[in-house]
Amino acid sequence: MRIDPDRLWQRLMRLAEIGGRPDGGVDRQALTEGEIAAWRLLIGWAAEVGMEAATDAAGNLFLTLPGRDRALPPLLAGSHIDSQPTGGKFDGAFGVLAALEAATFLAERGVAPARDITIVAWMNEEGSRFAPGMMGSEAFAGVRDLAAIRAARDAEGISAGDALDTLHAAFPELPRRPLGFPVGYYLEPHIEQGPLLEQAGIPIGIVTGIQGKTTWEIVIKGEEGHAGTLDMALRRDALVAFARMAAAMQAEVGLADPVVKFTIGRVEVQPNAPSVVPSRVLFRIDLRHPDNAALAGFGRRLEALAETYAAPCGVSVTRLGEAPSNDFDAGLRARIAAAAARLGHAVMPVLSAAGHDARHMAPLCPAAMIFIPCRGGISHAPQEWAEPAHVAAGAAVLAEVISELA
Amino acid sequence: MRIDPDRLWQRLMRLAEIGGRPDGGVDRQALTEGEIAAWRLLIGWAAEVGMEAATDAAGNLFLTLPGRDRALPPLLAGSHIDSQPTGGKFDGAFGVLAALEAATFLAERGVAPARDITIVAWMNEEGSRFAPGMMGSEAFAGVRDLAAIRAARDAEGISAGDALDTLHAAFPELPRRPLGFPVGYYLEPHIEQGPLLEQAGIPIGIVTGIQGKTTWEIVIKGEEGHAGTLDMALRRDALVAFARMAAAMQAEVGLADPVVKFTIGRVEVQPNAPSVVPSRVLFRIDLRHPDNAALAGFGRRLEALAETYAAPCGVSVTRLGEAPSNDFDAGLRARIAAAAARLGHAVMPVLSAAGHDARHMAPLCPAAMIFIPCRGGISHAPQEWAEPAHVAAGAAVLAEVISELA
Repeated sequence: MRIDPDRLWQRLMRLAEIGGRPDGGVDRQALTEGEIAAWRLLIGWAAEVGMEAATDAAGNLFLTLPGRDRALPPLLAGSHIDSQPTGGKFDGAFGVLAALEAATFLAERGVAPARDITIVAWMNEEGSRFAPGMMGSEAFAGVRDLAAIRAARDAEGISAGDALDTLHAAFPELPRRPLGFPVGYYLEPHIEQGPLLEQAGIPIGIVTGIQGKTTWEIVIKGEEGHAGTLDMALRRDALVAFARMAAAMQAEVGLADPVVKFTIGRVEVQPNAPSVVPSRVLFRIDLRHPDNAALAGFGRRLEALAETYAAPCGVSVTRLGEAPSNDFDAGLRARIAAAAARLGHAVMPVLSAAGHDARHMAPLCPAAMIFIPCRGGISHAPQEWAEPAHVAAGAAVLAEVISELA
Repeated sequence: MRIDPDRLWQRLMRLAEIGGRPDGGVDRQALTEGEIAAWRLLIGWAAEVGMEAATDAAGNLFLTLPGRDRALPPLLAGSHIDSQPTGGKFDGAFGVLAALEAATFLAERGVAPARDITIVAWMNEEGSRFAPGMMGSEAFAGVRDLAAIRAARDAEGISAGDALDTLHAAFPELPRRPLGFPVGYYLEPHIEQGPLLEQAGIPIGIVTGIQGKTTWEIVIKGEEGHAGTLDMALRRDALVAFARMAAAMQAEVGLADPVVKFTIGRVEVQPNAPSVVPSRVLFRIDLRHPDNAALAGFGRRLEALAETYAAPCGVSVTRLGEAPSNDFDAGLRARIAAAAARLGHAVMPVLSAAGHDARHMAPLCPAAMIFIPCRGGISHAPQEWAEPAHVAAGAAVLAEVISELA
């Protein structure tokens, strides 16, 4: 094994203390003080073995073990260290620390790889503080404009741009790499966030692709009024319109086939006072489907339902993000299978139901993902858990592939 | 006319500057710095004509023009000066300032009334910051325990008790009157908050009673999960349960008869993140009906619907407040009619669709309310408006009745 599994586990637990919640979960949202503290920890660990830290205009963190030929495009590996407000210890953090462990193990043994090995922690994968997520990888891949990313605001009105400037100001010594610098390969280890590996009793998932995802922001505009006096027949109650709309969307899309995923996760009501008829409801839809035609069809249905059920209120429907299903590189998938076989770990192919930054790297270079099981398939929750043996297996397979490629 | 209508109007506009919103509305919620500033203004105006200020344990403000026989129970008149977060200039403020104008006018002319005339501004009528509202009058009338009132918390977790202590600390010089001191008569002028007077072209409404009101807090408890991975069939999505429940309540209660009023004004979703299946939804119901049997029947229906539609989530249903319909004092209503006739103002009887502090005074002493029209029947909104002529008419009728009784 080309890793130290105990050190990796201890670092996972140490990182989880930053933003640690009393319930055992982690609240370390993007561009917060918690994320700044986590950067400091990672940069310190990397510096111990002579790795170089850098950032870019989108707030991604790069930790590089220099290769013999620095002109070669680096092997990039990692994930993200931001979490949901009620997140767990493994989502994102496992990928970054497993990749860091692989590089650290080589560095400690004085191995100079052929090309740079760069560990990446992408900015704001989760999208809970600033929506939508995957800001760092989308800016890097040129999928979304940096100016649009900087304009996003959190619930307190702080812009992502200001938060990004705060992050950069905390690390004035870090050089800035250009967005979209050439990359040789991209590898992302992650917990599965689904039950398939655990149910099959298999420690390594070779990710075939990521299901497509579309997100919307919908705003229903009604009219305020007094709860005790305004006739029901005269009301333009934005919350009543929302309730009917959401119930119809769930019935016609959420329950339409066995694999679709339909979620309304965020709702804001105005003025949100107990005896005032609500004048405005803003909500977000997250729709996912592995089949791109089905994704598009359900999307059109949701947009039509929003128009149908808004009356007598007005409605605006904004598509925030659209990511079709993708396939990961066949050559890298074969290398992962071979590495796992050498280490004696069983593997199975898995379609990723969750989105990952790897989606945006796949068009730029050969890219792949390695999944490990998580208990009960639970993620984005404090009880999220991965077994130490699975963490070690996933990191060891990654380290094999990194050694081979770099 | 026993008032100065210009001064009254100017004071209404001056008070509306405290908590004034850019859209012309007023945000002066209970026990805020805005309310403290408004107290200072009122106490100052009252002091100019020798009126005495006092408070009580529930944060009610009393401004007294001393009578010749101070042992007689006072005539109490007023309303409240707290507003909704997106409230207007007249709701509550008109009643307090009209009563203050009547007393000021007498004081300026050296008239010593037979009994004390006490202007009251009740604490937290609106219930938007601390729910449910009418805290001051309910504590005064013994309808709700002061300890329960102090335990209520606002959205930021501040208790009403702490906010009340802050208010009292700002006015250390004010004497404390006991809760529930004897009252001779209670009069409350108010904007109608409905369209009837405006539609009839009549400036004075004699309020026959207040429609009954019941409020609930309902909490739906589901389970958090990842929006991209958790099977729809396995979800316990609290927001989906809420949408179905609210839509059913609107269909079966909100549209059940022409006079019922059903409102869900406040909704809180947890964790309220775009890609997390919601684990908890808390919402408030406001139900009103002039017929007590219908009010009770619809209430039972709502509670049954909450149980029916919660599955597969859990639900808790808490009745926060229950106020049956009431009738105002026939003798006082006749006096108001006679006073209006002397001043040449047409009157009509009106049932109050909105709740008022007067509801809680009616069991304690002869009580009545005087309504004036408001534009379009709109209230609890920045565009709330009453014509200066109607403000003057309502205050003049009140001043007539006060002069007669005190």
